[in-house]
Amino acid sequence: MAQPIKFGIVGCADIARKLSRAIKLSPNATIVAVGSRSEEKARRFIADNGLPATTRPYGSYESLLDDAEVDAVYLPLPTSLHLRWAVAAAGKGKHILIEKPTALCVADLDQILEACETNGVQFMDGTMWVHHPRTAEMEDFLRNSDRFGQLKMVSSIASVYADSNFLQNNIRVKADLDSLGALGDLGWYCIRAILWASDYNLPKTAVAFPNPIKNEAGLILSCGASLHWEDGTIATFHCSFLAHLTFELVVVGSRGIVSLSDFVIPFEENSAPFTVVSDSGFKELVTGWKSLPSKKVVSTELPQEALMITEFSRLVGEIKDSGAKPEKKWPVLSRKTQVVLDAVKESIEKEFKEVEIVG
Amino acid sequence: MAQPIKFGIVGCADIARKLSRAIKLSPNATIVAVGSRSEEKARRFIADNGLPATTRPYGSYESLLDDAEVDAVYLPLPTSLHLRWAVAAAGKGKHILIEKPTALCVADLDQILEACETNGVQFMDGTMWVHHPRTAEMEDFLRNSDRFGQLKMVSSIASVYADSNFLQNNIRVKADLDSLGALGDLGWYCIRAILWASDYNLPKTAVAFPNPIKNEAGLILSCGASLHWEDGTIATFHCSFLAHLTFELVVVGSRGIVSLSDFVIPFEENSAPFTVVSDSGFKELVTGWKSLPSKKVVSTELPQEALMITEFSRLVGEIKDSGAKPEKKWPVLSRKTQVVLDAVKESIEKEFKEVEIVG
Repeated sequence: MAQPIKFGIVGCADIARKLSRAIKLSPNATIVAVGSRSEEKARRFIADNGLPATTRPYGSYESLLDDAEVDAVYLPLPTSLHLRWAVAAAGKGKHILIEKPTALCVADLDQILEACETNGVQFMDGTMWVHHPRTAEMEDFLRNSDRFGQLKMVSSIASVYADSNFLQNNIRVKADLDSLGALGDLGWYCIRAILWASDYNLPKTAVAFPNPIKNEAGLILSCGASLHWEDGTIATFHCSFLAHLTFELVVVGSRGIVSLSDFVIPFEENSAPFTVVSDSGFKELVTGWKSLPSKKVVSTELPQEALMITEFSRLVGEIKDSGAKPEKKWPVLSRKTQVVLDAVKESIEKEFKEVEIVG
Repeated sequence: MAQPIKFGIVGCADIARKLSRAIKLSPNATIVAVGSRSEEKARRFIADNGLPATTRPYGSYESLLDDAEVDAVYLPLPTSLHLRWAVAAAGKGKHILIEKPTALCVADLDQILEACETNGVQFMDGTMWVHHPRTAEMEDFLRNSDRFGQLKMVSSIASVYADSNFLQNNIRVKADLDSLGALGDLGWYCIRAILWASDYNLPKTAVAFPNPIKNEAGLILSCGASLHWEDGTIATFHCSFLAHLTFELVVVGSRGIVSLSDFVIPFEENSAPFTVVSDSGFKELVTGWKSLPSKKVVSTELPQEALMITEFSRLVGEIKDSGAKPEKKWPVLSRKTQVVLDAVKESIEKEFKEVEIVG
């Protein structure tokens, strides 16, 4: 069997704890280095997360990138630092798994993707749910025109209730660190889900809902938008740091519906539900539905984040060991998500005008 | 026990078949007359729906209204005829149960409500789901600030997949009969649900989504809007004749969520589900939810439409037998729904501008 892919973790964000566990769970990946702005912090992260004593702590991101043994980096840095460190990592030949949102804007992302292409490294963003086997099962239903028909409508909500400590101190609400706020952190998932539902067919326009809620620094705490395709298909999303934990996704076609209430983070780690219904309608005298939705439960041995690591590492392994080219699908999907996110942001900035989405 | 309330059915629309059954099921109501544009049609309706042979068929709406024995009328007429026949019925002292949408616009509805008030008759619109005991149970949850917190977001979808026969011939897509199209027929339910979720607190503005789908006559087949309150609470809805049967409602508060997928017509007649979750959040390392949503099932002996008839008849009985005043709640809720519907229509007409909602 091939050597596991050797990861360096660049930044000790909270989410990096979850990803460290995922790398440990993945059969084809291992952590060899952790970089932080202080070596002490990196050392503590290694100890707290039960990483092997051989894991090398670095007191700067740069020094981690200089570690020749590191194949790939996981970048959970604040979004404003993505451009600099992703480009630097690609320049050192490191494959890149980067947290979402991928960049502050698509122009920045394009610089990252260009650096990846130039250096022949794999790029993937950290959207975990797309790697859950549930997603593939739902996709089978969505792409089956006999069961789902044509896409008509998508509705998505992602919210996480933030306490006052988060609202004052978390990087996701700091204009200089994560200036996209809830749109970048949670809206990203909604937009990705909408694109997924539409088979990654970019909508033509975006219109932000009026009066998003912002904090004192002007950072978005709650917002939403509608997205429009030329054939009349419509999607809406709402994302918020101010409402109870919600990960709703409803995809309505001409002949069926798929829906779930935990699309970003499944309720439970090893099984995840979704609901479908096809070709229902009313009973005689409209006293009920002639066929009822059915609930499916999809089991998975590995959590979705470990499946993400496994897939990323598989691609890196093929590049490293078999001279394969990086898989283009992942940067393409990241870019489409970022393009739509940018359009929503622009619509907010232009007082909720309809903004054209240019792919 | 008091005499059952004697109903006259004004118009033999399809929905009148369902309501005839509901009246038969209700312990305090009975049908004594059916009016149609032809006596033959009224006679056939009586036979086809198993009404007693004593039921009087009328060949005009007017002659039914002249039947002194009729206490109350059920008006399932096309919306464009509501103003004329509701005012006429009130003028004859008949209590009025009227199909939704209540009128083409709030100015028309106001004329109807004025006629009802002048004549001391009860007014109620035919929104059935609000009478289901499930609605009261969900309301207990929504109004419980320890479980639900403050309202933050509502998302509602109502769609019915119309076949080509419906799209060509049904009155709901005829500009001269039901000029509000899908907005009147299905958007009504969404708007009512949103108002219900907000404890009937009118939103401040409505913004229609761009590019609703219309038929050749300009009638709306699919549209939607976002509704906005001053405190940043937002609701969205989408209604359509072009998508699979969908009755989704998700109500998100700061501390909880209530959701259901059959809010307008329950999947089954005698039991109806909904889902709630309170004070959940992520487990350590965000590997799942610390508390899971729970599904409640609410049983009902009588279907929601029979409960509506029973409540309406109870109110009529109190007026008739005990000299009570008409219950104001019902016309108030109808009017609020119509006011929001009018604002959405205005926003569509004004190229999706934000329209102020004036109660």
